[in-house]
Amino acid sequence: MNDFLPTVDDVRAAAARIDGLVHRTPVLQSTELSRLLGAEVSFKCENLQKVGAFKARGATNAVYALPAATAVAGVATHSSGNHAAAVARAARLRGIPAYVVMPSNAPMVKRAAVIGYGGSVIDCEPTLAAREAAADALVRRTGATFIHPYDDVLVIAGQGTATLEFAVQAPRPDAVLVPVGGGGLLSGTALAARAVWATTRVVGCEPGAADDAARGFRSGMLQPAAPTGTIADGLRAALSARTFALIRRDVDEIVTVSEEGIVEAMRLVWQYLKVVIEPSAAVPVAAVLEGSPGAFGGQVGIVLSGGNVDLGVIAGLFAAASPQG
Amino acid sequence: MNDFLPTVDDVRAAAARIDGLVHRTPVLQSTELSRLLGAEVSFKCENLQKVGAFKARGATNAVYALPAATAVAGVATHSSGNHAAAVARAARLRGIPAYVVMPSNAPMVKRAAVIGYGGSVIDCEPTLAAREAAADALVRRTGATFIHPYDDVLVIAGQGTATLEFAVQAPRPDAVLVPVGGGGLLSGTALAARAVWATTRVVGCEPGAADDAARGFRSGMLQPAAPTGTIADGLRAALSARTFALIRRDVDEIVTVSEEGIVEAMRLVWQYLKVVIEPSAAVPVAAVLEGSPGAFGGQVGIVLSGGNVDLGVIAGLFAAASPQG
Repeated sequence: MNDFLPTVDDVRAAAARIDGLVHRTPVLQSTELSRLLGAEVSFKCENLQKVGAFKARGATNAVYALPAATAVAGVATHSSGNHAAAVARAARLRGIPAYVVMPSNAPMVKRAAVIGYGGSVIDCEPTLAAREAAADALVRRTGATFIHPYDDVLVIAGQGTATLEFAVQAPRPDAVLVPVGGGGLLSGTALAARAVWATTRVVGCEPGAADDAARGFRSGMLQPAAPTGTIADGLRAALSARTFALIRRDVDEIVTVSEEGIVEAMRLVWQYLKVVIEPSAAVPVAAVLEGSPGAFGGQVGIVLSGGNVDLGVIAGLFAAASPQG
Repeated sequence: MNDFLPTVDDVRAAAARIDGLVHRTPVLQSTELSRLLGAEVSFKCENLQKVGAFKARGATNAVYALPAATAVAGVATHSSGNHAAAVARAARLRGIPAYVVMPSNAPMVKRAAVIGYGGSVIDCEPTLAAREAAADALVRRTGATFIHPYDDVLVIAGQGTATLEFAVQAPRPDAVLVPVGGGGLLSGTALAARAVWATTRVVGCEPGAADDAARGFRSGMLQPAAPTGTIADGLRAALSARTFALIRRDVDEIVTVSEEGIVEAMRLVWQYLKVVIEPSAAVPVAAVLEGSPGAFGGQVGIVLSGGNVDLGVIAGLFAAASPQG
């Protein structure tokens, strides 16, 4: 089960395991948005998923795959947000404890979500080293099973289930675009896409301000995380050896986008698709917006990864950018 | 066909006529939003409908019901917004001209939508009398068929189709709540609800600052429109004799809400349901928010009527109201 790389069979097993525990999210289109983007774009709305993000899929798969005797001690994770809420929710559904190590600067709305799902939040310094140390101590103390946000076969397989659904909800796209941070969604998407869409290009989309995946993909060398101030707070993590291996094998391209492009793409999706997305989810939309015309073909699929925002903060951005604001 | 009152058979005929021409919109729920509202609320997302509003249903039904010989001269309407875009879109689909008389103070985004769908916009003073005079002149000049935003059997029947779908997408609610302006959505909803949900209360929701429907419902006397500054710009119209008759017969209650309630309800839906709604669509949500606990039962259905906003304007409201903005 915890072999190094998941297969498409793991994705199919995940789909069966989480059926009924997460939403089958809708696929939306907007004629006007497609016109503005220069391609017919279908959006798989994981912002409308349980906990407001695709992370519900991987976390639920990992929590429910645990044998009962192990599950009883609970689960733990460190995460800046959506994965934490997803683990807390899945644990509550299964009736086991969830412990979440969170950096002290995590967005209020994401912290509140974990607590709302009955999870215990353990604060730590906002560094990867502090997070990992706190999580290790926690696991030793409680016997909880650690569920990594992306460096986990079951989590990656769970994230891939969105694409299995996407394939029956919309026509085959010329390219499928998803954001890349730690690479869980991208590698899961690529695994599933290879099985359901033989000739679709799989494209990872990354903020230029956090381009470790793009640099690693080009050079063939896994890059460490670097400090970044990108507005796409869900994409600040770096790939793991596992997600890097999957991405090198199954992904066609990684493109980067500007911070301005992310804000503009977010605004267009709110305005025309009428759904609220977080900055990370806007990154693939920005890739189409900033790409050359037709760069990804006439039919594009995008997984909108999440919709958790501090509304006042984003509204402030839009109000500042708007002539009417 | 243009008898005074439509029947549920007209609603079923409309559903067949517009099938494939408008979206079957999703029904969404949010655990957190239900908790905040004190009831399990299902949302029929007509903000995700074509043209961003339920108005696509009635307008498409009316445009496609025209005999070919009549249709060729085109269609006309006067409207402050979503109905106009809906008529323009349906006319373009059918390949006939659309003429829209619009008040000079209509929101830019709604004007742009009509033009985007290939409609001709004729400006007029922002009074009902000026609108009607301009529309009359237009119809005489062009031979176009006038399609009223709500005082029309085919339009009312079309609006009712949202509830036929809602009934197969979600469990029977104790109450269904929709906004009321001219009464097209409310009377269509009531017609359909009586057929598909035997014991569901049908509740119209209106801004207290534009409460002509509530006053008329209480007094039994149709009230004229009064000038109003409500933020719910889609609900400034008054009932017609036709919608008033249907509402008196089939609606259980009309409740009013505050302007502050509308903004707060809109914010909650954006934040937790992750969809963009316009102020008019927030009015039923405000009714639950401001009502006494359990006022509408444990299971509530709400039709989110539209999602067309000037994003900068609404973002400015949220940013001003938010401690983070």
